[in-house]
Amino acid sequence: MVGYTKDDVSTEERERQRALYGPFTDALRGLVDAGIRTEVDDDEVRAVQAEVEALTARLRARQIDGAYGVRMGAGGQGRAWGNAVVGLRNAVAPPLVVEQEGDSGRVWSDFHLGAAYEGPPTLVHGGVAALILDQVLGQAAGAGRRPGMTGTLTLVYRQGTPLGPLRAEAWIERSEGIKTWARGHILGPEGVTVEAEGVFILPRWARRALAEQDASDQQTPRYFE
Amino acid sequence: MVGYTKDDVSTEERERQRALYGPFTDALRGLVDAGIRTEVDDDEVRAVQAEVEALTARLRARQIDGAYGVRMGAGGQGRAWGNAVVGLRNAVAPPLVVEQEGDSGRVWSDFHLGAAYEGPPTLVHGGVAALILDQVLGQAAGAGRRPGMTGTLTLVYRQGTPLGPLRAEAWIERSEGIKTWARGHILGPEGVTVEAEGVFILPRWARRALAEQDASDQQTPRYFE
Repeated sequence: MVGYTKDDVSTEERERQRALYGPFTDALRGLVDAGIRTEVDDDEVRAVQAEVEALTARLRARQIDGAYGVRMGAGGQGRAWGNAVVGLRNAVAPPLVVEQEGDSGRVWSDFHLGAAYEGPPTLVHGGVAALILDQVLGQAAGAGRRPGMTGTLTLVYRQGTPLGPLRAEAWIERSEGIKTWARGHILGPEGVTVEAEGVFILPRWARRALAEQDASDQQTPRYFE
Repeated sequence: MVGYTKDDVSTEERERQRALYGPFTDALRGLVDAGIRTEVDDDEVRAVQAEVEALTARLRARQIDGAYGVRMGAGGQGRAWGNAVVGLRNAVAPPLVVEQEGDSGRVWSDFHLGAAYEGPPTLVHGGVAALILDQVLGQAAGAGRRPGMTGTLTLVYRQGTPLGPLRAEAWIERSEGIKTWARGHILGPEGVTVEAEGVFILPRWARRALAEQDASDQQTPRYFE
């Protein structure tokens, strides 16, 4: 499958990379936040811009073509580090760390959304709530050994979601063949803010892989973490 | 309304700010992209991180509390520059520039999504498609003088959306009282990839303002641009 790269990195190497890129990307997130909120004078903004461009050039001195994809290490562990919601190396991602309860298909995440995720003033963008719910519902399907691409997603907005500390929860409702129905919600300080239901469909290329895996009773590969 | 700040900046001042912060935030977007894709060695990553932290401290020397909100200038023009989809000052936003056909409620945007918006390898994250469609459907409602907060949003995924150049389109389907139904889609090189329908509900605080404006027949305030 295009973009799924098997690089067989060991658990140790993976942890080394995590220790390097985790704090690095957090620093980028801080810069993005400061870029929205700064009120320093124009000359200082221009001076910082020039330095940012110089740093970008240093990073681009050696870089991959295109996007990060998903890289599969030894033991079948995936690194979706470019992912827009959970990507350890993606400063657009908050990032969410999604926990799962065995292979029950129940997942949850506690996270914080700051100024970069605003829609209506002081509130999380309705589309950011959708972005996060798409990810956690998809991970619920995957955690229940029913991974899939989003087929449909329906969101019901109960109240505004305030910026700040939040929680997302999702679970599998039912499965039929290649389709899995998942549900979930976002919780703010005043309870549920947004509810979601989604249908996730196992892509054709993954069907044989999953069947083989079921037969050998291995642990489900974790594409996201 | 909380977070809507009337600062009465003139058109000239607004353009001056746009010329300053537009290229600055584009530079931040470049750095985020390079952060995902770089393969420079560990020492260089750590060195760049230290410089990023120093730049963040310079920007934070003077900054607003909390998020940007929406600021209303002279003539009723709003600056949603912190917005997660269209925000000129938000490096999380691609950003979309949304065009509108008079007050017909028809809007569109041509934009490009790179490595920072990935979900499945080489494809746009399904939730990013939802994020963008929430914004453009909401702007269709606003462009048709029916602004509102998202009430429900339903997405149907027809095919994977490739990273790269894309287009979003949205229009008003119908209105009843405080509710407006909008539809739209994302177009990739192979046609429609994701379809959306949403209901947008005029918030209580905005109802009187809109009634007054209808009475005086002024131009609709543009919250997003």
